[in-house]
Amino acid sequence: MKILVFNCGSSSIKFKLFLMPQEDLLAEGLLERVGSEDAYASLKTPRGKTKKYQEISDYPAGFIVIKKMLLNPDNGAINSLSEINACGHRVVHGGESFGGSMPIDDELEQGIEAVFELAPLHNPPNLTGIQQARLMFGDIPQVACFDTAFHHSIPEVAYRYALPEKFYSEYQIRRYGFHGMSHQYVARQAAQMMGSHKYSVNLITCHLGNGSSVAAIRDGHSVDTSMGLTPLEGLVMGTRSGDLDPGILFYLNRKGYDTDSLDTLLNKQSGLLGVSGSSNDVRDLELKADGGDDRAALALNIFAYRIKKYIGAYMAVLNRVDAIVFTGGIGENGAAMRHRILSDMDQQGIVIDEMRNEVHAGVPGEIQGPTSRIRVMIIPTNEELAIARDTFKLTTKNTDKSGDKICQP
Amino acid sequence: MKILVFNCGSSSIKFKLFLMPQEDLLAEGLLERVGSEDAYASLKTPRGKTKKYQEISDYPAGFIVIKKMLLNPDNGAINSLSEINACGHRVVHGGESFGGSMPIDDELEQGIEAVFELAPLHNPPNLTGIQQARLMFGDIPQVACFDTAFHHSIPEVAYRYALPEKFYSEYQIRRYGFHGMSHQYVARQAAQMMGSHKYSVNLITCHLGNGSSVAAIRDGHSVDTSMGLTPLEGLVMGTRSGDLDPGILFYLNRKGYDTDSLDTLLNKQSGLLGVSGSSNDVRDLELKADGGDDRAALALNIFAYRIKKYIGAYMAVLNRVDAIVFTGGIGENGAAMRHRILSDMDQQGIVIDEMRNEVHAGVPGEIQGPTSRIRVMIIPTNEELAIARDTFKLTTKNTDKSGDKICQP
Repeated sequence: MKILVFNCGSSSIKFKLFLMPQEDLLAEGLLERVGSEDAYASLKTPRGKTKKYQEISDYPAGFIVIKKMLLNPDNGAINSLSEINACGHRVVHGGESFGGSMPIDDELEQGIEAVFELAPLHNPPNLTGIQQARLMFGDIPQVACFDTAFHHSIPEVAYRYALPEKFYSEYQIRRYGFHGMSHQYVARQAAQMMGSHKYSVNLITCHLGNGSSVAAIRDGHSVDTSMGLTPLEGLVMGTRSGDLDPGILFYLNRKGYDTDSLDTLLNKQSGLLGVSGSSNDVRDLELKADGGDDRAALALNIFAYRIKKYIGAYMAVLNRVDAIVFTGGIGENGAAMRHRILSDMDQQGIVIDEMRNEVHAGVPGEIQGPTSRIRVMIIPTNEELAIARDTFKLTTKNTDKSGDKICQP
Repeated sequence: MKILVFNCGSSSIKFKLFLMPQEDLLAEGLLERVGSEDAYASLKTPRGKTKKYQEISDYPAGFIVIKKMLLNPDNGAINSLSEINACGHRVVHGGESFGGSMPIDDELEQGIEAVFELAPLHNPPNLTGIQQARLMFGDIPQVACFDTAFHHSIPEVAYRYALPEKFYSEYQIRRYGFHGMSHQYVARQAAQMMGSHKYSVNLITCHLGNGSSVAAIRDGHSVDTSMGLTPLEGLVMGTRSGDLDPGILFYLNRKGYDTDSLDTLLNKQSGLLGVSGSSNDVRDLELKADGGDDRAALALNIFAYRIKKYIGAYMAVLNRVDAIVFTGGIGENGAAMRHRILSDMDQQGIVIDEMRNEVHAGVPGEIQGPTSRIRVMIIPTNEELAIARDTFKLTTKNTDKSGDKICQP
């Protein structure tokens, strides 16, 4: 069966078409700057690539562009919309209600809308994408896969902040965590690569990309993660500060910074960009640091130092750790960054083989040295495939033979 | 020589009189509710205890009360003010200028005033205490010992937040850390107990009291600590939230909480008190938890869990760790809390002997089991003695033979 996977942002729509259960990628496409006159749409299939600049005024217009591209007789991927058997959708926030991927119906749409406030930038376009796909594809099954769902297993001691009870019970303030599809995907792949049952491995998974997070995984279940109520908490990111003394906000507020400017500061102007003053891209910064740019080097070192601290914290939480897994653009390809993170940890049982680390990029593998007690794995993530898998499972069976938690409504 | 040590808060003055270098405690006293009609003053000497309720309208009045108590022929500690050879003062914030204890002069007073904004609740009364003591004792040496000074050795990678450069260079926003006199004191004691040179030990020191912080100490120098720009960051405390997603503040602000109410919430209504809903005292909460109070148990477990994570983070930072040191009221006496923190860490090299942990309270000792790679030490802190030692060193010699960093103006 053919499953179309959507990842809909405020001005971009990414999609991938899979043949399942073979997991063959039939097409992948991207619409950027949706809502503007100089939008563009691209599609890649085994038959070729296209990229076209055009006005895409809104989501409905975007979906018409997607349909045309997929049906294009020259280099499209299907002959008729009816070939598509199901759609899977990435939804950033599932709140406390959704602990697994879910078939979409009107009630589920309301559930996504109910937590708009928790993810004001993400859930609205996610829902719009779902609505457009339901309009376009009619009666086929549609599935929502939540970035928060994998972290539903986090225990109260880790998800509660040290605030009065009512801020949890009335305002839903708790650690939700994000990147769940990615953490889950690489955790399952890691278990497979180790020849272990997926519910028997203890892992620390590091998803390092433009947004970054770490998860502590015990017996295959997430038990803690660095992102919290919002994706601002935790690691230093491209433009996000990650963890900082909340007292800084009070201090700056009294110096005249209002909430909106502080929000912009911490989310858009901080992180690698803020410290380096020049770039939010690890590759750029590595080049600059090699060229003697001290601020670039500092930004990279702070980024790495914080990851090292989270790895240590989660080692203490998990006690036994089988492997540390790196994924995401930086995790998969950033050999110098991995070196910064894991050097000088031999007494903690982690020794990387510098040569293997150096040459390893973009493919699954292990980079620990022979004296390392803990494996260090590189596993390219594939969130869209994870969504396709969940969608396939939910639309073909009512019971999940693999044992992964998938909620039925 | 006799050294009088002051710890001056906004409405309290604590003092201790030491005979140095013997380190004999000749007197200790406390004034509470200074500035009110129902203030009280207490003094304890080898000759007896006194406690008296009276109006103490302000700091000058408080210092007159202290003088009278010390000179009281019945149960005082001295016959004449001239017996006092020097005063040592605790100063909470030394900013970036003071990396060690310093003799006080007018310029140094200005330095303390220069960072009022960084410690608005603490530095002003600290300075008032210094000024009163200089007035009262005339020409004797006075020494300022900063809570931040021991953390001056923290490297940039750990003291910088991931904010744009100007927030550091213009607004002085960085990690300063606090409880420095305590972390340094127990680090030196630990080295002595281990028979090691003080600059050769790697330690994680946990100061757990009404305020709590953890420090990572490499070769006797602080290289990271959990408190930051302010004492709000880091561990969960009696009424402070410690670390949380800064996005929570934006979220609550948009729900109508202004900066002052959020400041009060995070500093005064959160932490153990906020989660339990009933107490900020670990002993109370342990009793309640034993009696079946789930919220009390949750508060204790979150408190412990966060400390466990910091210990793990600093193990990753330090690589080799010789000992974990517990101090402060909870660290010294909270056997159940130490158990919560360190249980299930055998794979990380930490095993406590439950029996030794249970019986150990208030005196220096070790509680690790025979299979523990890392020592677990309990060392009662004594910040006032640490201040007296620094004051003694600074007033008797120009060179510090012990090698500890003490700045000369």
